[in-house]
Amino acid sequence: MELSYLGPLLRPDLAELIAEEDSDGVAAFFESLHPAVVAELLQELPAENVWSALATVPPEDQAEVFTFFPLWLQEDLVEGLDRGVLSRLIEAMPSDDRADLLSRLDRKLVDGVLPLVKKAERADIRRLLSYPEDSAGAVMSTEYASLSPDLSVAEAIARLRLLAPSRETIYYVYVVDEDRRLLGFISLRDLILEDPAARLGDVMNRGVISVRVSDGREEVARDLTRYDFIAMPVVDDQNRLVGIVTYDDAADILEEEATEDAQRQAAVAPLEDGYLETPLLELAWKRGVWLVILLFAAFLTAGVLKMYEGGESGGWMVMFIPLVLASGGNAGSQSATLVIRTLAIEDTTGRAQALAGRITRKEITVGAVLGVSLAGLSLAVASALVDSTSKAATVALTVFLVVVLGTVLGALLPIGFRRLGVDPALMSNPLIAALVDVLGVVIYYQTAIAIVG
Amino acid sequence: MELSYLGPLLRPDLAELIAEEDSDGVAAFFESLHPAVVAELLQELPAENVWSALATVPPEDQAEVFTFFPLWLQEDLVEGLDRGVLSRLIEAMPSDDRADLLSRLDRKLVDGVLPLVKKAERADIRRLLSYPEDSAGAVMSTEYASLSPDLSVAEAIARLRLLAPSRETIYYVYVVDEDRRLLGFISLRDLILEDPAARLGDVMNRGVISVRVSDGREEVARDLTRYDFIAMPVVDDQNRLVGIVTYDDAADILEEEATEDAQRQAAVAPLEDGYLETPLLELAWKRGVWLVILLFAAFLTAGVLKMYEGGESGGWMVMFIPLVLASGGNAGSQSATLVIRTLAIEDTTGRAQALAGRITRKEITVGAVLGVSLAGLSLAVASALVDSTSKAATVALTVFLVVVLGTVLGALLPIGFRRLGVDPALMSNPLIAALVDVLGVVIYYQTAIAIVG
Repeated sequence: MELSYLGPLLRPDLAELIAEEDSDGVAAFFESLHPAVVAELLQELPAENVWSALATVPPEDQAEVFTFFPLWLQEDLVEGLDRGVLSRLIEAMPSDDRADLLSRLDRKLVDGVLPLVKKAERADIRRLLSYPEDSAGAVMSTEYASLSPDLSVAEAIARLRLLAPSRETIYYVYVVDEDRRLLGFISLRDLILEDPAARLGDVMNRGVISVRVSDGREEVARDLTRYDFIAMPVVDDQNRLVGIVTYDDAADILEEEATEDAQRQAAVAPLEDGYLETPLLELAWKRGVWLVILLFAAFLTAGVLKMYEGGESGGWMVMFIPLVLASGGNAGSQSATLVIRTLAIEDTTGRAQALAGRITRKEITVGAVLGVSLAGLSLAVASALVDSTSKAATVALTVFLVVVLGTVLGALLPIGFRRLGVDPALMSNPLIAALVDVLGVVIYYQTAIAIVG
Repeated sequence: MELSYLGPLLRPDLAELIAEEDSDGVAAFFESLHPAVVAELLQELPAENVWSALATVPPEDQAEVFTFFPLWLQEDLVEGLDRGVLSRLIEAMPSDDRADLLSRLDRKLVDGVLPLVKKAERADIRRLLSYPEDSAGAVMSTEYASLSPDLSVAEAIARLRLLAPSRETIYYVYVVDEDRRLLGFISLRDLILEDPAARLGDVMNRGVISVRVSDGREEVARDLTRYDFIAMPVVDDQNRLVGIVTYDDAADILEEEATEDAQRQAAVAPLEDGYLETPLLELAWKRGVWLVILLFAAFLTAGVLKMYEGGESGGWMVMFIPLVLASGGNAGSQSATLVIRTLAIEDTTGRAQALAGRITRKEITVGAVLGVSLAGLSLAVASALVDSTSKAATVALTVFLVVVLGTVLGALLPIGFRRLGVDPALMSNPLIAALVDVLGVVIYYQTAIAIVG
């Protein structure tokens, strides 16, 4: 079943069933498709329709689909939701996913809902929320399978049958003593191969690899991947088992960390959500902060150039060449990095066109906001370095034009490459900067001719 | 068990056991540790010691450790190995790992070894090698568990016990008809919850999500991650099951693709192996190709500047300002990107110091090679644009100095940040370029004063 083709076909059907309030039909939809597919289909509908669709199935099935929504959407959907409904949903969600969601919600909302949640689950939530962000504790799940070493293999398998519905995985079984200290582990694969009468403590693997609850989440994800584990056990200072991190969460963590690193390296303060979901002003801020720092560094370069070129009459323009070119190149690098990563992660055959349109509109707006801000700053600082307002205005107007140019080129060239079937990442940041350099010089001198003459 | 602390303790022990030819001791080492840990420990030893250690255990255990070596090391280790030993090792390796290795080996070596490999395995290898690089077929494993829909659940579990030792995973069971067409799937977790007397065809999930053998590997890895699968089934044009891609391979693929994208975006042609293992000249080539293209783009900018500034006597220096600064900034971006990604992936507490030393030496050498090459080119092209050799020499010498400076700063600043406990990715490419700009201007003018006067 090829999903990229299936999605566009199923979406209108689902919308129709919801519109007709055919709850049996909607429930059948949930039944027959993978929850991730249902989540993708629902995501395209208005929020109230998402809830009327989810309401047709029990909380367990709701939770299965719900956790496949991106966090920002989960957050949007629970705002204003009936507290009773929300507390049932929270009880049914996997422990790590609900901790992620609650840690993002308004403190008041959380305090209102938690008392309605079952006591045991509430304690679990409070504990998970207490771990520092980005630690193993903050990403782990408490729904692991752990057994006593004194059970026989047959007893262990019987226990796993009971545990299966409520555990993230039963493929790795952790063996713990009465103080929950981690003694060993055995995979379900090995377990079904063992003599049913053998004692778990005798057949388990000792020397189990584990991480500390305070370890960084990236480190944990990397260790799990290195050992090809399905789950990595997390222990406290006394080697007591407190949770597991599963392979699917590890993959998500590494993907997020790679995205954050790419953003940081292009001088963008890491976005909390996806590029597409980040509001315009937040995006402009996360880029602008760095562009301003870089602008001041460029003024330093201008000062040095002034020192060397200062004597000459034409020198004032030379002084700002690196500054105007760097402004455009930096804005372009930011755009290209954000767009290329978004295309790599989000692009599916069905919606390439719509994606390109959304990105382009977003970049033009952000480019304009950044351009105006940097131009304003440039006008102020340049005025102190040159002897006429028209010269400072030339620099400022050029910065505006070059920043917009860089942003638009940085966004459009990778999209164009993708459309031609070429890897958009080939449109490298230095290449975009080089193009901005050529055009930037023309813009700078033409602006000077127009303003200063 | 915290491995970063364990490694340095175990390494001397293992080396000693090998030196004393204590094969029981070495075998006990293999027995008690995870194969990935054994692989890490062996990796630090000379190649001949690796083989004398591996020789103490049967081919199955050899293969388990061997597949945890990076591909370049696997390649190094099998060169010159006895063909009989190599063919046993190949038989014991997982189908996807051995296809990866063989696809990198010399054609003649492969033709010499394959006839010694068991017939069934040989056919499997030939088939996997026939799929295009970067396709699902090239990364999939053929060791999956598939069963007939007519089996009962109890019979299915009994069959899985027999299949377990030879399959990548038995946690997902694929149900196929007599033509191997994919009918459905069931997880082992669900299987042990079902009525033992039920028919597999009645309890399996229909509408199983699969990918085509010709689909791109990145797309497959992304789909698998999206659905949180342990394995993704791969089918041919007739929906016949031909393989699976497992979660651990998907994580590796996404990691590799993220690294390649980061390199492309910093104008580095993607490295085949890790940064540390790439030979100096290859590294210089993969960076130099792009730096030359960017240099020519900068000469275009110089041409445009000449047009505007041409009239003035001092104009010749201004012409090359963007060129010399971009050369340094681009080389610095390349270094920073390679170093930051290497630190993110390779750095473990135990060897941060050694890593920093290796990276620094490598970058200084590569920087010198790139600096000399770009300076040579600059000398030739600049000579055509200015009226004296000393002016062209000024540009060339500045390019050399600035490229070396950019490379060294791009490598050392992230390493320094890491040492201070700050995220090295904060040392963004634009920030390095900004620093190079300030220093580059000083270098350029001081060089001109020294050479031209």
